[in-house]
Amino acid sequence: MPNSKKVLELFYDVVSPYSWLGFEVMCRYRNVWNVDLKLRPAFLGGIMQGSGNKPPGLVPNKFLYMTKDLGRLAQYFSVPLSSPSDPFEAMFEKGSLAAMRFVTAVEEKTDGDAKVEKVSRELWKRIWSKDQDITQPASLTEAGLKAGLSASEVEELLKLAQSKPIKDKLKNTTQEALEYGAFGFPLIVCHVDGKPEAFFGSDRFELLAHCIGEKWVGPQPNTPAAKM
Amino acid sequence: MPNSKKVLELFYDVVSPYSWLGFEVMCRYRNVWNVDLKLRPAFLGGIMQGSGNKPPGLVPNKFLYMTKDLGRLAQYFSVPLSSPSDPFEAMFEKGSLAAMRFVTAVEEKTDGDAKVEKVSRELWKRIWSKDQDITQPASLTEAGLKAGLSASEVEELLKLAQSKPIKDKLKNTTQEALEYGAFGFPLIVCHVDGKPEAFFGSDRFELLAHCIGEKWVGPQPNTPAAKM
Repeated sequence: MPNSKKVLELFYDVVSPYSWLGFEVMCRYRNVWNVDLKLRPAFLGGIMQGSGNKPPGLVPNKFLYMTKDLGRLAQYFSVPLSSPSDPFEAMFEKGSLAAMRFVTAVEEKTDGDAKVEKVSRELWKRIWSKDQDITQPASLTEAGLKAGLSASEVEELLKLAQSKPIKDKLKNTTQEALEYGAFGFPLIVCHVDGKPEAFFGSDRFELLAHCIGEKWVGPQPNTPAAKM
Repeated sequence: MPNSKKVLELFYDVVSPYSWLGFEVMCRYRNVWNVDLKLRPAFLGGIMQGSGNKPPGLVPNKFLYMTKDLGRLAQYFSVPLSSPSDPFEAMFEKGSLAAMRFVTAVEEKTDGDAKVEKVSRELWKRIWSKDQDITQPASLTEAGLKAGLSASEVEELLKLAQSKPIKDKLKNTTQEALEYGAFGFPLIVCHVDGKPEAFFGSDRFELLAHCIGEKWVGPQPNTPAAKM
């Protein structure tokens, strides 16, 4: 029998807090909607450069609003998001290249999305919940172990993350996102009747649901109230 | 008895298509939620300058996405929005200063928001539905007449729109929006327990409803399905 599930691709980077919200919501809905969610770890720095976009935080009122908005959304979405003490340093100076190469290596070496999901979440928890580093090998190791990888697996993945094939794979995924029209993350691409429909950000779920013929019941679909 | 209604202020400019979506949704919900909606016509050009923000359309992928996004939202929100043939000329070269001074004069001279609502909608229909001018006196006159003003009222309002008190009133409203943290429109400021909570854009209604203790049932709350 043909697989009738609609495919949703989620392009994200763990440096992006709105991506975390989108990621958690989509991971919840993958079991509620008749969809096949594909996690597509990519590099936000490459998206900004490739699209010519500038980070929103450079406009003071926008930065203040984002901080407020993220706090409200984190609570409403039940995601333990909390800004790092120095968001500019964390996001733009330190960045996420090493982290996203590591996630790409995990994607390459493990079957399905389960480990990619867990490692990504552990990295988000570090940078966007506990104000911890995600650039050093020791940081990636900690995230990997918490995600259930063995010490020897992590060691192998750290090495693999430095290889040309993995660097190229991350570049290619980022390029794919740009070709879908990305100028930031998250970008969710729904494949509906063979046509891709791209949704940017974590504020189009109701519209997205409408487009794929599913129902949006809020950010926590697995709670009894939402299931009613 | 004290008025227990929560006050929502909607800061907008008719040059902004996302403001039109927010405006229609709030005009529908003003009769559904226990709120007192205050329309606050302001000047987007002043917000961009005052906040140092840049129009999103300058990044090509963002511009393409906005066009797509607006089309999808217009359909889902049931607002007859359609892009002008030259959005850059309409939004940035011609702009909305004369139009928003006219709306401010309407606000000054009429009781309540009813006429402000109608004139604003007619102006949006011109620029964001019929690809018509909103800068010339003849254009403002047509919008005013369609909104139910008499020819002599329109004439008086056009004159008033050029006066210093009206120019200052529009400046002051724009300044107020900046002080609430605006970097674009629409900005909806909810007064909850004496504290202002600002929401930017037309994609936070579900969260806004949650914050004021009301229920979001989609962009068309007055349809039988939404009322069930």
